[in-house]
Amino acid sequence: MSELFTVLTPPAALALFNQHFHPTPCAERIPTEDALDRVLAEPLISPQDLPNFRRSTVDGYAVYAEDTYGATAGLPAFLTVIGEAPMGQATDLELGVGEAALVHTGGMVPAGANAVVMVENTQQVDETSIEVMKPVADGENVIQIGEDIRTGDQVLAPGHHLRPQDMGGLVALGVTQVSVAVPPRVAILSTGDEVKPPDQPIGPGQVRDINSYTLSALVTRAGGVPIRYGIVPDDRSALEAAAAKAHAEADMLVLSAGSSVSYRDMSVDVIDGLGEPGVLAHGLSVRPGKPTILAVADGIPVFGLPGNPVSAMVIFDLVVAPTIRAMLGTGTLPKSQVEARLDRNIASISGREDYVQVRLEEREGERWAIPVFGKSNLIYTLVNADGTVKISLDSNGVRAGEWVTVYLH
Amino acid sequence: MSELFTVLTPPAALALFNQHFHPTPCAERIPTEDALDRVLAEPLISPQDLPNFRRSTVDGYAVYAEDTYGATAGLPAFLTVIGEAPMGQATDLELGVGEAALVHTGGMVPAGANAVVMVENTQQVDETSIEVMKPVADGENVIQIGEDIRTGDQVLAPGHHLRPQDMGGLVALGVTQVSVAVPPRVAILSTGDEVKPPDQPIGPGQVRDINSYTLSALVTRAGGVPIRYGIVPDDRSALEAAAAKAHAEADMLVLSAGSSVSYRDMSVDVIDGLGEPGVLAHGLSVRPGKPTILAVADGIPVFGLPGNPVSAMVIFDLVVAPTIRAMLGTGTLPKSQVEARLDRNIASISGREDYVQVRLEEREGERWAIPVFGKSNLIYTLVNADGTVKISLDSNGVRAGEWVTVYLH
Repeated sequence: MSELFTVLTPPAALALFNQHFHPTPCAERIPTEDALDRVLAEPLISPQDLPNFRRSTVDGYAVYAEDTYGATAGLPAFLTVIGEAPMGQATDLELGVGEAALVHTGGMVPAGANAVVMVENTQQVDETSIEVMKPVADGENVIQIGEDIRTGDQVLAPGHHLRPQDMGGLVALGVTQVSVAVPPRVAILSTGDEVKPPDQPIGPGQVRDINSYTLSALVTRAGGVPIRYGIVPDDRSALEAAAAKAHAEADMLVLSAGSSVSYRDMSVDVIDGLGEPGVLAHGLSVRPGKPTILAVADGIPVFGLPGNPVSAMVIFDLVVAPTIRAMLGTGTLPKSQVEARLDRNIASISGREDYVQVRLEEREGERWAIPVFGKSNLIYTLVNADGTVKISLDSNGVRAGEWVTVYLH
Repeated sequence: MSELFTVLTPPAALALFNQHFHPTPCAERIPTEDALDRVLAEPLISPQDLPNFRRSTVDGYAVYAEDTYGATAGLPAFLTVIGEAPMGQATDLELGVGEAALVHTGGMVPAGANAVVMVENTQQVDETSIEVMKPVADGENVIQIGEDIRTGDQVLAPGHHLRPQDMGGLVALGVTQVSVAVPPRVAILSTGDEVKPPDQPIGPGQVRDINSYTLSALVTRAGGVPIRYGIVPDDRSALEAAAAKAHAEADMLVLSAGSSVSYRDMSVDVIDGLGEPGVLAHGLSVRPGKPTILAVADGIPVFGLPGNPVSAMVIFDLVVAPTIRAMLGTGTLPKSQVEARLDRNIASISGREDYVQVRLEEREGERWAIPVFGKSNLIYTLVNADGTVKISLDSNGVRAGEWVTVYLH
């Protein structure tokens, strides 16, 4: 296998991968207030009606709607005020025909009332009576019991990514603890004799370990926990030992591959030896990122990413991020995207996905995407890019001036 | 002031606010590896050339390009191999005319060579000689010194939001510590006699404190540090004391206002008394969210948000989030957005911005946005929404079937 690239399209490679990898998300219970951007691991069933009392949406007078029918400024309805519903408490007021009670926004509507007249549409006659100058319909300005959510309703499904308003929704129901998916531990191994840690001076022929740090940040954004296993030298037994240790300790392995062919051959062999079924795809029809390895080793996903930073990031988004999300029991996060006009022709070939780095520029009120060309070895191609344009499998390219979707970094 | 709404359009209110609020971001030094999604506080100048040696982008032979001109499979160029450039070290090989040296991807190109022939385009003759079957141009397959970044280049500007690839870019230059903006501490005060902490049972007339938790999560997402000051009862001196404490301790105040008119009047007075110049806008021409207060009190921004969760979130995005970003010395974060066809007419009036909650649905390959109607008091209007559609100030509404931009939650 080591000499042959079994090149697959990204969808075909992912389909094969998903035949062999069946994530089993683990759950942990945490305080709701810490659950922002976590993934719900259980269905959330409402333990109560929300609201659990009839609530006024305005400041005004609770009334029996029929008492106001036909009321106008010239011919107002005259009602007797029997009291005020206090905020934050149940009221034991009970309206009879021709009666009203003062209520505040968010306050409880007394028994017997079925609507609330806004205070602006009333006029106080004396301490105990008002005139209503506009009719209200049955239910007007009242939130009914259970109108927001009913007891027993499923309010959130397992796999739901918890957003700020979901925190509010949980807290509204008194749900102060939630069961969320445990973030997968993702082992990151960098390889190559030329790669040095970032805090060391480098000499000619040496580069610093860019990919471990870029990939760690990408893992964090996808919802995983990155664990850096450092830099492994170009040596088969060293790589075998490091990969076996990571395989035993982590939930996923990401190898940022050494760049030479001999090294790539070695790493595909090492990955294949980690467990069953082993390497599933070696080579993707995608540019950049062709020398990618997808494997499953005894239930642990293993990815061999190209050493070039641009390729590594493209492939991370394409195969690693969706796998982390699947391990969390959820889908991929939506990427921010904008539409822009392409600044120049981009050629592609049918049967290959192309991912082109672009920066954005406003010209006379229109947004333009300017391809950031640069060898994919150059990290500043990525730093200078605002986003990525995808040229799909069946396309031969995009012409200058066409509108494209830019996925923002 | 308390009785009068000085209603402003959101742009006018923000312009007035920005006349009186001049953020002065503070900086702190942290390890680069912890700086994901932080905002750079200083210009980042490259301390070195990147790469700092001539690097091969392929596996092959370093050559003097002229030696390969005219080479074909039928009439190859014959070169003497003088050695192999080792990975991770400087090479002291020096090519003369008619000579070549083995190099690996990422390895150093020896002196005298000006290009690299891919190994696929060569044939080994014996231990010390090869045939080159395809010419290379001067510079081909070689990254020049400083081609990525040059010493003294500004690689990132202050105010830059650090993304995964920026981590890589910093590490590539040996920058292991960076100066980033200190996140502003945002005090969140909830108010109302009817509001109870989430871990307590509620009776009729009572609701749990939704907004403190939704707002905390929104502050976190915007890059601030939320500090919850709990629930203040509907009592002027209690509100004055809590607001004064928060004003002394935090960098920004967000009050989630009590819902009744009398309470709103009280809170505008209390906010106005916190410092100079005081309340700048009371009421925005936006739906939902009209009863919003914008103030600056002795250099501290203070926002009074509507008590309704939907309104509070709309107004947070509109005025609070941009202010937090300004305090970090940067712009607003791009929101994920998608285009969708609107499912039904939405009426608006010219001179008012409308924000409509929608959920998304695929119908026959097209994406549709279905307005989630619901009283703005209902938190599950937000929980059930996938995003927001904005109807701009000068629009009278949008017709069913039109394409709109949906800003995802």
